[in-house]
Amino acid sequence: MEIIKPRTLSGFMELLPDKQAQFERMLEILRRTYASYGFAALDTPVIEDARILLAKGGGETEKQIYRFTKGDSDLALRFDLTVPLAKYVALHANELAFPFRRYQISKVYRGERAQRGRFREFYQADIDIIGDGKLDILNEAEIPAIIYKVFRGFGLSRFRIRVNNRKILSGFYAMLGLAEKSGDIMRTVDKLDKIGADKVEAILMEDCGLDAVQAGEILRFIAISGTNDQVLAGLESYAGRNDLFDQGLAELKAVTANLAAFGVPEENFAVDLTIARGLDYYTGTVYETTLLDHPEVGSVCSGGRYDNLAGYYTERQLPGVGISIGLTRLFYVLDEQGLLNPALPGAPADALVLPMTDDPGPAIALAETLRGAGLRVQLYGEKKKFKQKIAYADKLGVPFAVLLGEDEIAEGKCSVKNMRTGEQVKLSAADAAEHIRAAIACDVPVILEK
Amino acid sequence: MEIIKPRTLSGFMELLPDKQAQFERMLEILRRTYASYGFAALDTPVIEDARILLAKGGGETEKQIYRFTKGDSDLALRFDLTVPLAKYVALHANELAFPFRRYQISKVYRGERAQRGRFREFYQADIDIIGDGKLDILNEAEIPAIIYKVFRGFGLSRFRIRVNNRKILSGFYAMLGLAEKSGDIMRTVDKLDKIGADKVEAILMEDCGLDAVQAGEILRFIAISGTNDQVLAGLESYAGRNDLFDQGLAELKAVTANLAAFGVPEENFAVDLTIARGLDYYTGTVYETTLLDHPEVGSVCSGGRYDNLAGYYTERQLPGVGISIGLTRLFYVLDEQGLLNPALPGAPADALVLPMTDDPGPAIALAETLRGAGLRVQLYGEKKKFKQKIAYADKLGVPFAVLLGEDEIAEGKCSVKNMRTGEQVKLSAADAAEHIRAAIACDVPVILEK
Repeated sequence: MEIIKPRTLSGFMELLPDKQAQFERMLEILRRTYASYGFAALDTPVIEDARILLAKGGGETEKQIYRFTKGDSDLALRFDLTVPLAKYVALHANELAFPFRRYQISKVYRGERAQRGRFREFYQADIDIIGDGKLDILNEAEIPAIIYKVFRGFGLSRFRIRVNNRKILSGFYAMLGLAEKSGDIMRTVDKLDKIGADKVEAILMEDCGLDAVQAGEILRFIAISGTNDQVLAGLESYAGRNDLFDQGLAELKAVTANLAAFGVPEENFAVDLTIARGLDYYTGTVYETTLLDHPEVGSVCSGGRYDNLAGYYTERQLPGVGISIGLTRLFYVLDEQGLLNPALPGAPADALVLPMTDDPGPAIALAETLRGAGLRVQLYGEKKKFKQKIAYADKLGVPFAVLLGEDEIAEGKCSVKNMRTGEQVKLSAADAAEHIRAAIACDVPVILEK
Repeated sequence: MEIIKPRTLSGFMELLPDKQAQFERMLEILRRTYASYGFAALDTPVIEDARILLAKGGGETEKQIYRFTKGDSDLALRFDLTVPLAKYVALHANELAFPFRRYQISKVYRGERAQRGRFREFYQADIDIIGDGKLDILNEAEIPAIIYKVFRGFGLSRFRIRVNNRKILSGFYAMLGLAEKSGDIMRTVDKLDKIGADKVEAILMEDCGLDAVQAGEILRFIAISGTNDQVLAGLESYAGRNDLFDQGLAELKAVTANLAAFGVPEENFAVDLTIARGLDYYTGTVYETTLLDHPEVGSVCSGGRYDNLAGYYTERQLPGVGISIGLTRLFYVLDEQGLLNPALPGAPADALVLPMTDDPGPAIALAETLRGAGLRVQLYGEKKKFKQKIAYADKLGVPFAVLLGEDEIAEGKCSVKNMRTGEQVKLSAADAAEHIRAAIACDVPVILEK
């Protein structure tokens, strides 16, 4: 038979079991944390009607989309989880309770040019809160507070959630008589981190057509920095000149105050006037999240407030606020930077039961007893020499091997071997379970910062 | 703006939040049970190189595949989890420890003609054990024992895992001088449940070219039934005439004995000579699982032993045994039959915290305290009338609303309202958490049989 060389497509992450175990732990933390805030799990199809998925149309995204036909159907793979959410909410609006809070942790597809650390299939881990007509500002503090919980749950502390409000920006540009150019200006200012102030100034003047005074005002404005109180105080000096600005400032103050009430320490969130998010549909609060020791990675978690989620699919006004973690990329970066905790168990089992007799019956029973005590237990059924069995336990990386020979069976015990120390003790099944559980029972974080 | 009518493609399951919560519970039970037997989680891409995915080629499957190009790439969506596993194991053989045990619970894609209860996107929940060159028979009992655990974990008891061994069938056909026709015969016999004995006999004679004596022998053979001991005894009468048959019988006896050792009661598994599985690559033990009260559904979980997993991708001999639950279809059937437990919580939260003051600070703190105690808590931030707040709690289906007004704050307490009974008590945050936890802490099964 002709052999076809196996390969996985480039831009598609496929992990070895130990790495996958670490990724699974992150998924579990995400699910648990999102659920603890009362978000409902949602699972939408990977494939949607292309006409629906691309209702918004145009732009960079469309080129990247996996689109194809099957029979008469014009189909596409979802490229984010927001458009499917919009479809879902519009479709089921009468059956949902608003505010509708959902989380979805799923793969999305973008046929980007393959490059290191860029993925064509990647997980997004999203939460959104959708209101019917209205949505209280409190939700805009809760969303980043949940992200704070998630990141702390991963073991990260060196991160900062940066918060801004587009009404402040729009209002400020209006003060300068630049209301109509505010979209272009925001997209330019959004690049500040990447290209620096000089280039931003140049683009504002050359491409956006601002004069030197206007560009100077904008650069002075986005240079307002310091503690959150200092930034808010700096903004106060602009107050009273534009309603939208004032409204945005009030919202930003509320979000800042409530974030503190949620227990998010000031070192993990910052009012930052430079962020705007390049997407037109954000209308109020916007978020970006950076790893303090790896600013080059850019934002690993972004989102914001929008006034109308599903305008393409329904007349109903559905404002919302949401945020998305680019999980595959985050995991890739953490791994690349050596931040995944080596103490995090990567083995598929806590114990490997090795039957040393021909009849596997007693070993089967022992393994079941250990599982009943909550352990992950693999029963090794292969007829191999003892040395090979131990070599397998080593390669698998299991912390314990449990040996069961004639002697142990006669005594009603088993021999528990600690694979790291080599120490071996003879114990009853119940004591063995306790012994192993005590040794592995430590809630090791996924990420270990240096 | 033109409104596009939202829809979800037919053949794609998209659940409302309460149903999704039940589905999520099944996923959780699957992950936990598979992991408890020492299976590593695996996650392979949805999209693969079409040439690799279709290495086996031909057949019904190929027509159903979602295949398309992107740039120069000939791509396809996975149609099962076995071919991607074969690719993965061949690709990473040197990095894996054998036996390699993995579980994967993922969506697969088949563009079947849409019909009620048939899905084009559906979850498979697979476990496989892959050996390097050899694999002990013990694994062939462990696989169905795990499925027993999963189904019991769902709350099902009225199911039967039916076990057979293809060596017995092949050996028996060889006794009749029908070795070369054994594939055709097995595929025909496999339809017994669906078309009945008379039609099987007719097809055997008309299409497979058997004479009446041969067809009669086969029907007599597959009519051997009764308890497992009775079937095994019936098979003994054929022993000693064909090596393959004898080997298969020894294997079937070992699997039967070990299944009992794993604690699987005889009512939940049966030696059944009529099942063969229509796929050529099974070489030994085969499994099918039927819901006893819904035989019309067919097998909800099938698999078996194969001698060579990845022959298309590597010279290495990799025998294995695996099984797959068709989860989406199973869920659909359980729902259709009204077997999903109505007592299973479908609400996204255990408690809804309702702030009754302007400052949300105390309510935020209370919600965080309740979450710290392990509860799923939604904070309701909307400025609505009390009646509307309670109506929302009702629609959401949360078991408890927790009210926090000036009085409660002054007393350092909160009012806990049981949404079912209407009973309301004033408690400290810690006592409220305990009160709610006690009321919801019941491990409700997903499935409630009638």
